[in-house]
Order: sequence, then C-alpha cells, then structure tokens
Amino acid sequence: MGNYWFYENHTDGYGVNWKIKKIVHEETTKFQDLAIVDTVEWGKALVLDGMFQTTEKDEFIYHEIITHVVMKTHPNPQKVLIIGGGDGGVLREVLKYDSVIHVDMVEIDDRVVENSKVFFPQIASGFDDFRSNLHTKDGMQFVKNTLNKYDVAIVDSSDPIGPAVGLFSKEFYKDISNCLNDDGLVVVQSESPIFYEDIFKSVHKNMSAIFSNVYVYLATIPTYVSGPWSFTIGSKKYNPENLPNDKNYISGLKYYSESVHKAAFALPPFINQMIR
Amino acid sequence: MGNYWFYENHTDGYGVNWKIKKIVHEETTKFQDLAIVDTVEWGKALVLDGMFQTTEKDEFIYHEIITHVVMKTHPNPQKVLIIGGGDGGVLREVLKYDSVIHVDMVEIDDRVVENSKVFFPQIASGFDDFRSNLHTKDGMQFVKNTLNKYDVAIVDSSDPIGPAVGLFSKEFYKDISNCLNDDGLVVVQSESPIFYEDIFKSVHKNMSAIFSNVYVYLATIPTYVSGPWSFTIGSKKYNPENLPNDKNYISGLKYYSESVHKAAFALPPFINQMIR
Repeated sequence: MGNYWFYENHTDGYGVNWKIKKIVHEETTKFQDLAIVDTVEWGKALVLDGMFQTTEKDEFIYHEIITHVVMKTHPNPQKVLIIGGGDGGVLREVLKYDSVIHVDMVEIDDRVVENSKVFFPQIASGFDDFRSNLHTKDGMQFVKNTLNKYDVAIVDSSDPIGPAVGLFSKEFYKDISNCLNDDGLVVVQSESPIFYEDIFKSVHKNMSAIFSNVYVYLATIPTYVSGPWSFTIGSKKYNPENLPNDKNYISGLKYYSESVHKAAFALPPFINQMIR
Repeated sequence: MGNYWFYENHTDGYGVNWKIKKIVHEETTKFQDLAIVDTVEWGKALVLDGMFQTTEKDEFIYHEIITHVVMKTHPNPQKVLIIGGGDGGVLREVLKYDSVIHVDMVEIDDRVVENSKVFFPQIASGFDDFRSNLHTKDGMQFVKNTLNKYDVAIVDSSDPIGPAVGLFSKEFYKDISNCLNDDGLVVVQSESPIFYEDIFKSVHKNMSAIFSNVYVYLATIPTYVSGPWSFTIGSKKYNPENLPNDKNYISGLKYYSESVHKAAFALPPFINQMIR
C-alpha cells in the first residue's frame, strides 16, 4: 500500500504537505472539485478545490467554536439559519440545544452533503433530525428571498474563491441582517488574519457597514493554515463578550468552554490593529 | 534569481514548504546545522537542524509571550536567567524591564549568537547592554553549578533532539528550581500539544515532580507547526493567572497584552485533558 503526499498551496510562499494513505473518492460537482482522502495523521478529510475543509481528527475545534459562541450568547436560540456547512458539523452542534425548534440549512452543493453522509457519518449526523430543513440553494438568493426570521445565523463558507465569493460581500450581510430578529446575531468564518489579512479586514469592514456591533474572535485549528483563524460576529443586541447565565449547558464539548469563549475575544494588539 | 522551496518535516504525515529567495548563510557548528535563509513571506529566518527557529516577521509573538507572562507575574524581577535563546529575542524582551539589574544568558552554541548579531540585529540587540552576561556553556551544567539565585528563569530551547534533549528532563528542572529565589518562577517552551503531545505531557509531568504550582498556557505562532504552541510555568509562589498590579508597563508590544496574558491560560478541554 503506497503513501502519497497531498500538497495544499496557501500563498505564493507557503504550503502544507499531508501524507495520504488512500484517495477514497473523487468527483467534480456542479460547483467544485470534491475529494475524500484518508490521511496518515488526521483520519479522513474532505477536500474542496484543493483545500482541506474538514478532518475527522480536528473538526470538533472549528465546529464547536463557530457554533457555540453565538448560540451561548443568545439567551434562547429557537430558529437558526446555517449557510454552507455541507459537511453537517455546524448542524450537529446547533441541534445540541434543546431550545432550538427549527433549523434552515442552505448548502449550494448537495454533493457535499451526500458525500458527508456516506464518509463522515459522525459529522453529518443531524440531517435526519425533525428540526432540520436542508435547502439545496444558493445562500445569497435564500437570504434575499426568505420571509423567515432567525435568532442566530451561522455562515460556514469555504474560502472566497469559487461558489463562496458572494458570502463575503456587504450585500449578503445586509440580507442576513434583514432575516434576523431584533435581538439576532450572525457569525461568519473570516479566514486567517495572518495569511489572508485582506479578506479578514474586508469582512470586518463589510460587517461594520451593516451591524452596529461587530466582534472578532480567534481559534487555532491545526488543519487550517498555520496561525489563528478568525470569526466575525454581527449582533443587533447581545454582546458575545458578556456571557449570559448559562441556561444551556452542553456536555461533552472538547474545544469549547466558557473560559475558552471569553479568551477567544482577547485579540493580540497586532491583530486588533488590523481592524481599528 | 531563482526561487527554492525549503521543506520542513514535522511528523510522518505532515510537513511545511517555505519558498526561499536565497540561502544567505550555511555552516555546521559544533552542535548543529545552522542556516540563514531569506524567505518570500517571512523575511530572513534562522534554521537549526532543518527546523525554522526564528523569522523576522513573526518572532515577536514567541519572544513576547514566552518572556512577558513570567516577567509580569513577578512583582519585581531583578535577576533573570535565560537558557538557550541564542538569537537574543528573549534577552531583548527581558531588558525592557527597568527592574532588571542582571541577566545571565547561557547559550551552548556561540555561533547562533554570532550569526544572529550579523543577520538579525533587531533581534540580537541586547548583548551589549551592561546588564547582559553571556555564557557560552551547557545550560544543564550551568544551573547545576551556579551559586546565583534568580527571580525569573526562561528556558528558550530548540526541540528536544540534538543539544536541547536534557533541557526537558526532571533533573534539569530540579537544578533550575534550586537556583530560583523563594518566590521565583521558570517558564519553558513545551512544544505543540497537537503534534508533539508526548513531549508536552512529559514536560508537565517532570515539572510537576519539582514544582508544587505548574501552569500551562498557549500561543499560536504561525511559523511554528500548525495549531497552538504550549508554555509551561513552574512557580514557587506567584500564580501567573492572577496578574498583579501592573507596575511594569511596557509600551510597544505587538502580541502581549494583559488580556492576551489572561486568555492564554484558558485551555480547551481536550488539551486540559492531556495533563489531568
């Protein structure tokens, strides 16, 4: 059995090599190149357009931190919107809240969902929950047209190349704001401030044009490009830095805790500088 | 002018590629292979035995966080011991404190110091300070034999292969403890909990055998292997999680702040688990 190396190119001068035991599956969907590879160190991984999106071993870090910071901030999240997130990891985390009664999940590429159900059943575990409603649609169109109102929105997009470009635009944030309740809030993954500083800054600028309260927090995800990863919150009412009384205790989390939540907002001065 | 790729191998299944503009200098010292390379994205970098140690662009993160957490914790650090740290970055940070009257720096390989003075003058800026005393010696021997007592010790070692192996041993921590004052404390870089979990755990175990108070904190350094990097503190009196009144304000820091200091101790449950 051979070993292969998968090369992930990040910028002109930096890339990462992952040793692969096996290419489990490959296809070209309507939207992107999709591969499932079995890595030597991180278990199986979902790769879209040549970039690692999700690995079995460290997916919990990204999925917990993008989901629970906003879900814990809202005192009673009942209706939740997920844009992207086709692997199902965010959905799985959202469904851990008893308060949640309805989730709309909008993923443009149903092949991501279908492959995740087959190859990552522990991640894609929430699609059959009676509260889950999967829409195979363009997230931008969905938020422009929906009449629903949500307490929490989570934008779990891939990088802003390919199908996800529009999910980083001011127009999209405006439409998201329109479909949030008056005390609603949205979180978006806003890339690496180190390797993709321009995108990080532009998300902050675009969010700040729509939301009067914008917050940035960080987490470190080993299988994403080195250095901290950023998340940006637009909020109509609640300050995510002030945790409310924790009525919604979720047991068994491996990355998220209340102290990790609070600590995530402590930006080093050089990152703070980028957005001030 | 060509571009070359430098390949840094971390584990069996993971490695990083850096694009190099130029190999500025190479030599084999008595202890290790040493190279200075000019990278496309990180400025000049010091490479020892094939591993990036220091880059011009992000050295401030590592040097600030390893130095200021212990220096700020001690209310009046006057005598400081640095083991390793031949590039001079920790020394530069320590000398920012007016309280400091004497620094012993023990670096086994004087070629690291000499090359850093030539190629990284902004980092190796403290060797001529009247408070600095450089000893070209084995750190293990130094702490076994010295009669000096220190308020703060900082162990800025390379990875535990080659000359630095002994700097991760219980015996060494015992000798460090013996040369600390009754309210002294020591910090060591304790590797990546993700990629080098065994070393991370073993440092914690060895430190806990010597110090009754052991604390772990994290920082993310983009040019070190992906994911968080760990630092372990052994303390005789002060709890670094409780910052004292800040008598020693240091201006111009780019990574360290009081909120970053406090946040660094918020370990995610899966990392906490490794050492409980």
